Amino acid sequence: MTGRSQMALSIEIICVGTELLIGKTLNTNANWLAKRITSLGSTVARITVIRDDVDEIASSVKAATQRKNDFIITVGGLGPTSDDKTLESIARALNRKLTVNDQALQMIEEKYHRYVETGRMEKFELTSPRVKMARLPEGAKPLHNPVGTAPGVMMERDGKTIIALPGVPSEMKAIFEEALLPIIKKAAGDLTFFETSIDVAGVMESELAPVIDRVMHDNPHVYIKSHPKETERIPRIEFHISTTAKDSKAARKRVSKALTQLSETIKKKGGKLKPTKREQ
Amino acid sequence: MTGRSQMALSIEIICVGTELLIGKTLNTNANWLAKRITSLGSTVARITVIRDDVDEIASSVKAATQRKNDFIITVGGLGPTSDDKTLESIARALNRKLTVNDQALQMIEEKYHRYVETGRMEKFELTSPRVKMARLPEGAKPLHNPVGTAPGVMMERDGKTIIALPGVPSEMKAIFEEALLPIIKKAAGDLTFFETSIDVAGVMESELAPVIDRVMHDNPHVYIKSHPKETERIPRIEFHISTTAKDSKAARKRVSKALTQLSETIKKKGGKLKPTKREQ
Repeated sequence: MTGRSQMALSIEIICVGTELLIGKTLNTNANWLAKRITSLGSTVARITVIRDDVDEIASSVKAATQRKNDFIITVGGLGPTSDDKTLESIARALNRKLTVNDQALQMIEEKYHRYVETGRMEKFELTSPRVKMARLPEGAKPLHNPVGTAPGVMMERDGKTIIALPGVPSEMKAIFEEALLPIIKKAAGDLTFFETSIDVAGVMESELAPVIDRVMHDNPHVYIKSHPKETERIPRIEFHISTTAKDSKAARKRVSKALTQLSETIKKKGGKLKPTKREQ
Repeated sequence: MTGRSQMALSIEIICVGTELLIGKTLNTNANWLAKRITSLGSTVARITVIRDDVDEIASSVKAATQRKNDFIITVGGLGPTSDDKTLESIARALNRKLTVNDQALQMIEEKYHRYVETGRMEKFELTSPRVKMARLPEGAKPLHNPVGTAPGVMMERDGKTIIALPGVPSEMKAIFEEALLPIIKKAAGDLTFFETSIDVAGVMESELAPVIDRVMHDNPHVYIKSHPKETERIPRIEFHISTTAKDSKAARKRVSKALTQLSETIKKKGGKLKPTKREQ
């Protein structure tokens, strides 16, 4: 350890896309980010999903900047079409100008030249929809997109970092891993999230409510949540036990202690236990 | 038609559950509701996901009541355990007392008596975690839960309807279908959502950006959105074309007209077309 204190970041996610609000697309991007950020020892404080609309996006970003958090990550709306409005909206939320960023433009041009070289397109012209992807809020910096065309975008505002990622899953993930992972890891240090689940059959959730309270009281840093499962006759509950601790060993130890206490009490109440796998 | 004007409802969804923010659970509830509400001719204006925390839930509900919408649906947090905090939070957001609702208590008692009759549990006691599920904000009414124990909850506030549904998917769906479907259908009348998709290969999205603008301009009630797909060599884009119209025939006609114009222009640009299936 360097002596620098470990700090889990609090991160808000804003997903932009009408396809998410009409139910066409399942929000696997938010789920991936939530899982990834949690596993790195940081916290997702909120997920907001809004349509491709400048007022909606701008007001959501502005509201997020007024809450307690360290990072605001937007997902989607960075492409070349008119309904890609995220950067315009962030500029408005932060009261900054939207201007062509030279570095972003260069990234985009290089990409299209490569597409021509590899036969993906015939010839390249710097049309207005292509320049659009390089129009960034003033003071923002582009993030290299290893997979697609539109760069990610990063900027600072009053001590918060705002990051815009594309909505195409492979592009979103690639930019996250390349640009954000090192920052989040550095902030959180060895902080580790650890989780496990057990499956309990034969006892009602309402009967186990006081048990959960007691075990959480005795294990103050451990979070226990019961998830009743849909079954016809026998009540079945999944218990999910998790913690974020200063390192992996401490996290496992904490969860293990709570799990033992929980299991023993449930058995006394006649519940049948089996370990469950984490859903993927 | 009765002459009553058809009105699509604008609906916000607030999903409560730490499991969604740590990435343990994929938010299929929000996706199901979004799809269902859209198919009924109404609109999902926003989805917010927050953890099991009274401040977070209360402030999210309060913020939603201050936006333009007709319905606010919360999902999750109605069960017997201490981390089920939705009703307490709504009461706080609306500045109402939380009191035991006789009708809700009766629903819950009946349910447990049935569990005893069918051998799901041995004997029934009206414990505090069970009474908790009947503690509703003043003025609210319980909604029959045909599947599980915790009733749904419905209340009015300044012309808006606030509905609390349980987070267990089968319970959420059952209460939606029984209590909300008739209201949404009545409001929307014959309003119908219709959508179709085509898959385009061989043209870059940036090249088609002006085409989308033109077709949307010529078809003002039709929404077209391009979704670039992840492919290695050949660019591939899914175009999703949708509308909400006064009846099913009008909706189909509108989408069909836009689809024809879009397809012909894309073909001229050298794109290869094939119909796609809606993702499930």
